[in-house]
Amino acid sequence: MPSIDLNCDMGESFGPWKMGCDVELMEYISSANIACGFHAGDATTMRKTAELAIEKGVAVGAHPGYPDIQGFGRRAMALNPQEVFDIVLYQVSALRGICISLGGRLHHVKAHGALYNQAAKNRSLAEAIATAVFRIDPELVLFGISGSCLIEEAEKAGLRTGSEVFADRTYQVDGSLTPRSEPNALIHDTEQAIDQVIQMIESQTVLAVDGASVPLRTETICIHGDGPNAVQFAKAIRQKLAEHCIEVKAL
Amino acid sequence: MPSIDLNCDMGESFGPWKMGCDVELMEYISSANIACGFHAGDATTMRKTAELAIEKGVAVGAHPGYPDIQGFGRRAMALNPQEVFDIVLYQVSALRGICISLGGRLHHVKAHGALYNQAAKNRSLAEAIATAVFRIDPELVLFGISGSCLIEEAEKAGLRTGSEVFADRTYQVDGSLTPRSEPNALIHDTEQAIDQVIQMIESQTVLAVDGASVPLRTETICIHGDGPNAVQFAKAIRQKLAEHCIEVKAL
Amino acid sequence: MPSIDLNCDMGESFGPWKMGCDVELMEYISSANIACGFHAGDATTMRKTAELAIEKGVAVGAHPGYPDIQGFGRRAMALNPQEVFDIVLYQVSALRGICISLGGRLHHVKAHGALYNQAAKNRSLAEAIATAVFRIDPELVLFGISGSCLIEEAEKAGLRTGSEVFADRTYQVDGSLTPRSEPNALIHDTEQAIDQVIQMIESQTVLAVDGASVPLRTETICIHGDGPNAVQFAKAIRQKLAEHCIEVKAL
Amino acid sequence: MPSIDLNCDMGESFGPWKMGCDVELMEYISSANIACGFHAGDATTMRKTAELAIEKGVAVGAHPGYPDIQGFGRRAMALNPQEVFDIVLYQVSALRGICISLGGRLHHVKAHGALYNQAAKNRSLAEAIATAVFRIDPELVLFGISGSCLIEEAEKAGLRTGSEVFADRTYQVDGSLTPRSEPNALIHDTEQAIDQVIQMIESQTVLAVDGASVPLRTETICIHGDGPNAVQFAKAIRQKLAEHCIEVKAL
Repeated sequence: MPSIDLNCDMGESFGPWKMGCDVELMEYISSANIACGFHAGDATTMRKTAELAIEKGVAVGAHPGYPDIQGFGRRAMALNPQEVFDIVLYQVSALRGICISLGGRLHHVKAHGALYNQAAKNRSLAEAIATAVFRIDPELVLFGISGSCLIEEAEKAGLRTGSEVFADRTYQVDGSLTPRSEPNALIHDTEQAIDQVIQMIESQTVLAVDGASVPLRTETICIHGDGPNAVQFAKAIRQKLAEHCIEVKAL
Repeated sequence: MPSIDLNCDMGESFGPWKMGCDVELMEYISSANIACGFHAGDATTMRKTAELAIEKGVAVGAHPGYPDIQGFGRRAMALNPQEVFDIVLYQVSALRGICISLGGRLHHVKAHGALYNQAAKNRSLAEAIATAVFRIDPELVLFGISGSCLIEEAEKAGLRTGSEVFADRTYQVDGSLTPRSEPNALIHDTEQAIDQVIQMIESQTVLAVDGASVPLRTETICIHGDGPNAVQFAKAIRQKLAEHCIEVKAL
Repeated sequence: MPSIDLNCDMGESFGPWKMGCDVELMEYISSANIACGFHAGDATTMRKTAELAIEKGVAVGAHPGYPDIQGFGRRAMALNPQEVFDIVLYQVSALRGICISLGGRLHHVKAHGALYNQAAKNRSLAEAIATAVFRIDPELVLFGISGSCLIEEAEKAGLRTGSEVFADRTYQVDGSLTPRSEPNALIHDTEQAIDQVIQMIESQTVLAVDGASVPLRTETICIHGDGPNAVQFAKAIRQKLAEHCIEVKAL
Repeated sequence: MPSIDLNCDMGESFGPWKMGCDVELMEYISSANIACGFHAGDATTMRKTAELAIEKGVAVGAHPGYPDIQGFGRRAMALNPQEVFDIVLYQVSALRGICISLGGRLHHVKAHGALYNQAAKNRSLAEAIATAVFRIDPELVLFGISGSCLIEEAEKAGLRTGSEVFADRTYQVDGSLTPRSEPNALIHDTEQAIDQVIQMIESQTVLAVDGASVPLRTETICIHGDGPNAVQFAKAIRQKLAEHCIEVKAL
């Protein structure tokens, strides 16, 4: 029976400000990426979100980002590899300790926002992240964009990897995401997005924008938690996966 | 052969700003309390300071504080016990993971500044700290002012404790520190300060300001790292301890 | 024709996180207290909120708070008067410059949360705030709880003051607010709350919890912006004020 | 009689951490660029530094930077022009209000670190800064690297400008600084650095690395405040300027 992981960014509230519908979405996903206080989240939000994930049997992941809470970690920052190593070490360690204290365990790591995107292409940042994660716990799974530099560096470091694909993005013939600047970068139709996902899982390929079928390792799918239809989309994808007898489970 | 622990706050630099003379002092102490990024320290400073301590064979401790970097964690803040639990969990976990990734281990925890002082008297804050530390790792040693509420709560929680005394402070007949507002609160003379320490260690008592000898559990001595004569004082105390055949080692 | 000011805390969003319904509430109020980046708000939110207020003809006020964004400025902090002077100077100056750059002007200052509450009773903090505001611009109106220490110090400093009352709080016979720890501290019924306001405005007295009528300077009413019924309450109070021929305008 | 402005970054301490020797250097410069709390400085440091500058008759400038206190504003960040406009508006307004409250006035603005360097080449960031400064006060002088995009945009906006040159950097034939990656980028010899300055002032030209004499508007010279020989260098340059009958004064 084929299987897939559904991951979602969680714990992105901060102080008095709420974001996302973690409680509802936790019912549909298999992996929760919990913000670690640098771009979102705070010690209390982290502890509560980890409690919720553990209670629901959802795999807990750390979601480290750049130290830019106002910019939500979405603005590229020129940190050098050593600085990236250090902030990943700090953030992942913090969440890992919180999990352990709650009787759970940390399962994976997914970098956030600008850090995630830069590490997909910048080999030295990718290596810094992979090394930091391996040093904390070599059993951790490191997520990255399927086919990215980060996945390669994670494997080199000796880590298990989670190759991530996107339901609502189109792909180029080389397996990369169509840049958001292109008119056809996004798939707005939910049905079409879900159909793409099913194909990716079943065939480990994707139909590129030029019509070619290209191979694409498909291990985990990113469920966006911040859209107005997040819960609805999660429900719809779960139902379609069930129809196709694809099991949803953490890596 | 009697022994004593010498502890010192370390890793209190932040970004481009330097504080303390960690490299020099690391030669004289047995326990380093490393700031965890909330009142001082940052991910890079923490990693570097932990590397240094591990290399020198000094026991690494976490030094969590209030989230007030500009105020250096010295300004009292009205956090409730749950918030204190959460920020201690976060900070101690972060440093613990850093230590593990460096091949070392976390040995103890000492709260910083206003948090340390408030937890000496406020039982619910003391309990919050003790519970957080125990949950992370029941083998950790929790430091507190000798005779304080924090030491009591740590023992209740099942933790080993480190009762801290001060070389340069005078004591009341009930074993508490003379408040800084009193004219005779501080011992300015180095000789006298060191003599007090020797007495404390050898007799587990202290001469109170009224002349009475009062019992005082004496397990670790705080070496201030930020004064102009910090290194000189550390040297002097080490020499005197050696003369009295008192071994310096971590708890 | 009697008149009253309706003030509301605004611009309390931060980075990607939204708070309050500023656009809707701006239609009903005469004074907007805009957060200045220390407990909420950021440079972009401040500029946008000031633009909105100026466009709607609402008086712009600065709403400085403690430097505790995660705690939303609601946690008491032990800043000394000089530190309070400095952070008020900084925050009010920042918003004042933003207003001027938009072709508007800064009209008033209302301290936020823990700072507001502490300055109501602590004379040296009250004096620090009043002095900072006067130094920036002696024409600014300083808001404070009616009858508080802060109002007294503002007057001593030579500032115009805005005595604030609360629709949904009960009062003691000495004119102070019933502490929130008391069961009868809050008025939950909207009608009753609005009736209290009308009486306060028309008679400059309030009915204390023991039934006595006590004098209470009533110049501005705090409209809470964060409740689920904030807009509805604002509408209801505006309608009742209109029925009583009480004009709503800034001080 | 020819004249020149000597400017220096000041107020770069933060909380308990000291940086620079502001008191000593204030004797030798004509313009102080005071950090505004985003990359360094805090409300108290800003107030104290402005007091000192006003007392010494040194022109006060605002020194706004990226919101990255740990990185000291030296790490490039991908803020868009509107965000840059907003953070400059906020920071400059804050310092301007502080100056006014002290009986002084704000004279100029110099962006800091990565923001300064990016705005030298990125026209939309340069325009954002120039517009923000003009909106606050059209009388402010905006500093920029001589010949940079920022100087051009400042002039377009209608601002007076201060063209900055560097004593210790070499220049290319097009008037740009030799990149730090080149071996001959820096002038290590103090004599040679000062000689270059004298030539720049007297002839408004510089000898490029290839030997050509190229025109270079020379209005203000950056005195680095953080080196170990900062005060010594300032003294030496003052003496040489005096020998050449070049007056030191703010623009």
